[in-house]
Amino acid sequence: MKGLAILGSTGSIGQSALDVVRAHPGRLKVIGLAAGSNGDRLREQAAEFHAKITALASATGGAGLIEVATHPEVDIVICASSGTAALEAVLAAIDAGKTIALANKEVLVMAGALVTSAARARGVAILPVDSEHNAIHQCLHGRRREEVRRIILTASGGPFREMPAAALADVTPAEALRHPTWRMGRKITIDSATLMNKGLEVIEAHWLFDLPADQIDVVIHPQSIVHSLVELNDGSIIAQLGGADMKLPIQYACSYPDRWEAPVARLDLTAIGRLDFQPPDPDRFPCLTLAYRALRAGPSHAVVLNAANEVAVASYLEEKISFVSIPRVIEQAMDAHAGVTVSTLEAVREVDAWARLYSQNVARGLELKV
Amino acid sequence: MKGLAILGSTGSIGQSALDVVRAHPGRLKVIGLAAGSNGDRLREQAAEFHAKITALASATGGAGLIEVATHPEVDIVICASSGTAALEAVLAAIDAGKTIALANKEVLVMAGALVTSAARARGVAILPVDSEHNAIHQCLHGRRREEVRRIILTASGGPFREMPAAALADVTPAEALRHPTWRMGRKITIDSATLMNKGLEVIEAHWLFDLPADQIDVVIHPQSIVHSLVELNDGSIIAQLGGADMKLPIQYACSYPDRWEAPVARLDLTAIGRLDFQPPDPDRFPCLTLAYRALRAGPSHAVVLNAANEVAVASYLEEKISFVSIPRVIEQAMDAHAGVTVSTLEAVREVDAWARLYSQNVARGLELKV
Repeated sequence: MKGLAILGSTGSIGQSALDVVRAHPGRLKVIGLAAGSNGDRLREQAAEFHAKITALASATGGAGLIEVATHPEVDIVICASSGTAALEAVLAAIDAGKTIALANKEVLVMAGALVTSAARARGVAILPVDSEHNAIHQCLHGRRREEVRRIILTASGGPFREMPAAALADVTPAEALRHPTWRMGRKITIDSATLMNKGLEVIEAHWLFDLPADQIDVVIHPQSIVHSLVELNDGSIIAQLGGADMKLPIQYACSYPDRWEAPVARLDLTAIGRLDFQPPDPDRFPCLTLAYRALRAGPSHAVVLNAANEVAVASYLEEKISFVSIPRVIEQAMDAHAGVTVSTLEAVREVDAWARLYSQNVARGLELKV
Repeated sequence: MKGLAILGSTGSIGQSALDVVRAHPGRLKVIGLAAGSNGDRLREQAAEFHAKITALASATGGAGLIEVATHPEVDIVICASSGTAALEAVLAAIDAGKTIALANKEVLVMAGALVTSAARARGVAILPVDSEHNAIHQCLHGRRREEVRRIILTASGGPFREMPAAALADVTPAEALRHPTWRMGRKITIDSATLMNKGLEVIEAHWLFDLPADQIDVVIHPQSIVHSLVELNDGSIIAQLGGADMKLPIQYACSYPDRWEAPVARLDLTAIGRLDFQPPDPDRFPCLTLAYRALRAGPSHAVVLNAANEVAVASYLEEKISFVSIPRVIEQAMDAHAGVTVSTLEAVREVDAWARLYSQNVARGLELKV
């Protein structure tokens, strides 16, 4: 029986995690639940799963998250909260020897060096929950590091995959929020439309699998059936395929190194019929290129990339800037950042705060005249 | 340094195996070489690789093959000879504790029970060299038996994949020999056009991976890029992809459990662009159904299937029977066979001899009137 703490239990991933617990009552039990602000839902969940500890970040702040994540009966912390609120809690959980099932991008994009070195020092596993990195983890299982030539993350390409460059300037948030495959939150759906989501995943992959930018490739695969691939040193490629169901990677992270039965529909390749692969277009989707640039430039640049992107996406969702201004905001913030050492969370937060402020100014300058 | 014996060194797989040795002079050395009848080529090979022992089956018969396969300096026997000549040599090699790299279908189709039980008893690995089973082996690596829900063998579908049923009656051997992807011998190319090749692979997969017919599926995949797939108990699918280069699976079998660099071209999925998957059509390609029937009916039925197929394909290549008569010959031979225990090679050879004689008579009755 493994004890779980779920940070972000009322969100989409958190609820899927609870579905996994419902499917495996003899294998998983909920110890702790933490949510941002949805207290009613949190209380319902706590009652159903007999949680021993709960925290509502809007009430308890970061301290509550840390208490949930480090409860002595917790074996696995599922980090499904968004943003940077969970950073301290994840570090505290690593320190307490918990396995981390990570569904939050910011943790590694902002503090990848800190988090992975703490995990290595403590002998703690960080198991990726999003479908691409989970696929890579599955493909790497049983293989040695030196056998890996590169990893290939697949990207759906988002709703504007086929749209001509000229038309991109006018796309509205409503159009950008119509993702072809996955139903997700607003911020991540826009990131998916700009390909920044894939760029952040490239940075995550760097930290999760200890690979340089040159060994991480991205391929557009509109059907989102091949979740990702690993090319080995003899040219052989191992891929993981599955349906668009987040319960699968969550369960994998909970069951690892075992694998449990899952009540998911069988994937019928002949019903799907065809799988397409295209190279990403750097001209129409410069965010991916910016992410590679940040990864190559060093950890503080990734913090700037992430912060500037959050600001730019928020401005876009408020219909203040255009879709094509998102990468412009990020690029200008990155151009203005010289690079600093970020060996503490404080240093990370300082760069983050600077980048947000700077990007807000840039975004204001790019605001649409109505 | 691993010592190799190559049975069938002058054939296509045998020559690819020698290419692998050329690429890894510090890891592999040729100890023994055996060929069917091409003595000149065998002598050239023996001179280049300083083979310590050679055998020409046309001169020495089975005894020579056995000597090559059991030479004390041999670690791995690459069984690349066609037909049943290698059966005794493979059993002798297993008895001598050699690892078997198997590229010959008949060995498992005819004597799967004998060969696999001998290998189990002796603790010897049988590593598959043909691309589909090799792919399955790669996908299964590091996973437990009970995690496997089914395996999915891919088939190119052959040159007549899209041909209407009515047109199949008239296809000539010359048309059938134009395989879309792989360049192989005449018999196996016809087997590929009838899908019997895939049927024989289903039977092989049963023995190699200890799975019943119900857990072995076939999917048509014209591009032959996905070499095969494994569905796991949580619904996740692991696939192996690669180019059409037999050196890859041969090298894998030689290097296993390690994996070595290979000088093969990088597989570019975006250049390939699309991968298609279709269900096999049992009406147009009844040979696949016949193979499943033989697998379910028991080992002696697979011997009949294989023998009848060889006879039927030979008659077809001689333009004596039509393409659609190939499954008719096999079906009639299977209908006439009641099933016997085949626990010795002699028993296997007896069923084989009966089936050949019977099928020749059936084929004669189906001969085309010119």
